Amino acid sequence: MITTDICIIGAGPVGLFAVFEAGLLKMRCHLIDYLPQVGGQLSEIYPQKPIYDIPGYPEIKAQELVDNLMDQIKPFKPTFTLGERVDHLAKQADGSYIITTNDNTQVHAQVIVIAGGLGVFEPRKPVLENLDHFEGKGVAYMVKNPETFRNKKVVLAGGGDSALDWTIYLANVAERVTLVHRNETFRGAPDSAAKVFDLANNGKIDLILSANLKELNGNGKLSSIKLESKNKEELTIDTDYLIPLFGLSPKLGPIADWGLNIDKNAIEVDTRDYSTGVERIYAIGDINTYPGKLKLILCGFHEAAIMMHSAFKYVYPDQKLSFKYTTVNGVNAF
Amino acid sequence: MITTDICIIGAGPVGLFAVFEAGLLKMRCHLIDYLPQVGGQLSEIYPQKPIYDIPGYPEIKAQELVDNLMDQIKPFKPTFTLGERVDHLAKQADGSYIITTNDNTQVHAQVIVIAGGLGVFEPRKPVLENLDHFEGKGVAYMVKNPETFRNKKVVLAGGGDSALDWTIYLANVAERVTLVHRNETFRGAPDSAAKVFDLANNGKIDLILSANLKELNGNGKLSSIKLESKNKEELTIDTDYLIPLFGLSPKLGPIADWGLNIDKNAIEVDTRDYSTGVERIYAIGDINTYPGKLKLILCGFHEAAIMMHSAFKYVYPDQKLSFKYTTVNGVNAF
Ligand SMILES: Cc1cc2nc3c(=O)[nH]c(=O)nc-3n(C[C@H](O)[C@H](O)[C@H](O)COP(=O)(O)OP(=O)(O)OC[C@H]3O[C@@H](n4cnc5c(N)ncnc54)[C@H](O)[C@@H]3O)c2cc1C
Ligand SMILES: Cc1cc2nc3c(=O)[nH]c(=O)nc-3n(C[C@H](O)[C@H](O)[C@H](O)COP(=O)(O)OP(=O)(O)OC[C@H]3O[C@@H](n4cnc5c(N)ncnc54)[C@H](O)[C@@H]3O)c2cc1C
Repeated sequence: MITTDICIIGAGPVGLFAVFEAGLLKMRCHLIDYLPQVGGQLSEIYPQKPIYDIPGYPEIKAQELVDNLMDQIKPFKPTFTLGERVDHLAKQADGSYIITTNDNTQVHAQVIVIAGGLGVFEPRKPVLENLDHFEGKGVAYMVKNPETFRNKKVVLAGGGDSALDWTIYLANVAERVTLVHRNETFRGAPDSAAKVFDLANNGKIDLILSANLKELNGNGKLSSIKLESKNKEELTIDTDYLIPLFGLSPKLGPIADWGLNIDKNAIEVDTRDYSTGVERIYAIGDINTYPGKLKLILCGFHEAAIMMHSAFKYVYPDQKLSFKYTTVNGVNAF
Repeated sequence: MITTDICIIGAGPVGLFAVFEAGLLKMRCHLIDYLPQVGGQLSEIYPQKPIYDIPGYPEIKAQELVDNLMDQIKPFKPTFTLGERVDHLAKQADGSYIITTNDNTQVHAQVIVIAGGLGVFEPRKPVLENLDHFEGKGVAYMVKNPETFRNKKVVLAGGGDSALDWTIYLANVAERVTLVHRNETFRGAPDSAAKVFDLANNGKIDLILSANLKELNGNGKLSSIKLESKNKEELTIDTDYLIPLFGLSPKLGPIADWGLNIDKNAIEVDTRDYSTGVERIYAIGDINTYPGKLKLILCGFHEAAIMMHSAFKYVYPDQKLSFKYTTVNGVNAF
């Protein structure tokens, strides 16, 4: 069991900055995100796109903002559980909470901060009859740790950046990589597409275009996949893994069942401190709603600052919060 | 008369960023500040100090943040009236306002945004019998335009950075500069103090230490000053100007008389849109108050974004606001 002061669900920009505001008040944070990397929408959807409305940055690439936030919170040594989804929340007798993820990681915290953005990014799944049968037994929807695939046979499917990038990366790791795509051209960056065609031409990977996944086979564990080409020809490939990378679509997910007030997929909060109405549970960033709400990164930053000042009383019930400017007081690392 | 969509009182960090949020919604801004430069507290009180809690900047000097904000708002071509204090506000029949400064500059705007921070920084004045007699007639409390002093005789008084910096600067502009200070050592930066001693040793300026201002003389216009040293010796200097630089102290000032709800020197606002209760007048940044308020720069940024979305209806009563991400829509300059 991981023990911390504050458990933050969601490591998007708002969850990350919340660590800084907590740290200034000497509260430690653990963050959980279902994605294998931090940064939320910024890292997952538009890492290389410029944002223009971060105050003080006339222009900054989304991933650069995430990297800077990671630098900024470093003194406060946040800990992370990535690639896991928070599923359960259990209130303890003393008011604190134990959180449990889909992988059974448990976190004990005095305060819960939901910074879940649009919700869990759930992978878009291929429509295949016995898919759930092989999930976790050969079928994976994200690459949490590339080493899993070392010296294995891997089939990737998809035509976007993730499919291209992981094909290129795993070409040097796996025994054999096959990329299957239903079209002749790729949606992902032209650079990456060119690299993938190169790898195929040089015999480093197998590239199968204009084909769809048709059938999964294996005895308790995936062992082969049947493909069907546009002109209905069938092909079977032996493989240890299938990684369909068809994009992610956000869902509010388990949070919807925690007894919070939900309005149009967002959690209603009190703007005095962004509390949810359930004691010790706060919601900040894109996932909350209140009169006047704007789903902007800069608004989430403000909500994080205000919220942490309110949470202080649960972590340090006997202390009076004394508020000091960073310029005057500096940043006192843990 | 200057005509604009939004008149912002105060060109501190929050007033500056408000220009950006207004610009995204195609609203033009004019800013007025009593200080001769933009940046509010940051530029006036701690320009060279690092701030650590600007999201995305692990560390940034206050003046650098102000410079970046000026860059960020450039596409929206804000206009400025600096060195003037907003004194009066007059509601027009159509709901718009005309603002008048102490120098009789007039601005006609649909919406007023008070981003006045701690209020007007009023100069600390020396205690001299007929001081008000000579204000604007030889006595000045700030250097708005150094050219005013070209080839004139100038006496500066004070021991902080402003006194040192302006002594150094005006040494090359004025006919003769005299710096009067009541102590033997300076509070300002050691560098600047060393430069001032150098200038005095090389006969470029007159430096009079351990002396106080005693008496002002002149016929309708300042013509000489009497000083008194610690051991009660008197000295008279002919001069065209006296610039006492004894620091600034903030006062809410005329804003206190505009019928707004004031609580402990701050304006009460509605957190739904940071409106003051008086139609078309908003208050953002350090000058406002609401339950949970933190006087932080990052909170003012949020308030500015929300507030501008609310003000849109007064500037474009017939249009529906359509909200787009900067990453998607870019920044469309005026
Ligand atoms: C194309 C595009 C352009 C944009 N441009 C701008 C812009 O210019 N300016 C701007 O301010 N905003 C912009 N935005 C919006 C901005 O990205 C969001 O406001 C921001 O990402 C919100 O941050 P967040 O931390 O609240 O949530 P997110 O970034 O959505 O992060 C939330 C995280 O929580 C995780 N999560 C949710 N539920 C769970 C759970 N149960 N268990 C584990 N993890 C969970 C998710 O996996 C996710 O990583 C843009 C968005 C898009 C898509
Ligand atoms: C030493 C120090 C360290 C700080 N450190 C931090 C920190 O680390 N982090 C942080 O977030 N904050 C910090 N702050 C606070 C921060 O500076 C303020 O929150 C910020 O300046 C508020 O910005 P603002 O634009 O609301 O107001 P201000 O910066 O105060 O600007 C308001 C402007 O309005 C003008 N004005 C007021 N009334 C009138 C009028 N009637 N007519 C014309 N002009 C008028 C004033 O001249 C002033 O220039 C610090 C402050 C100080 C003093």
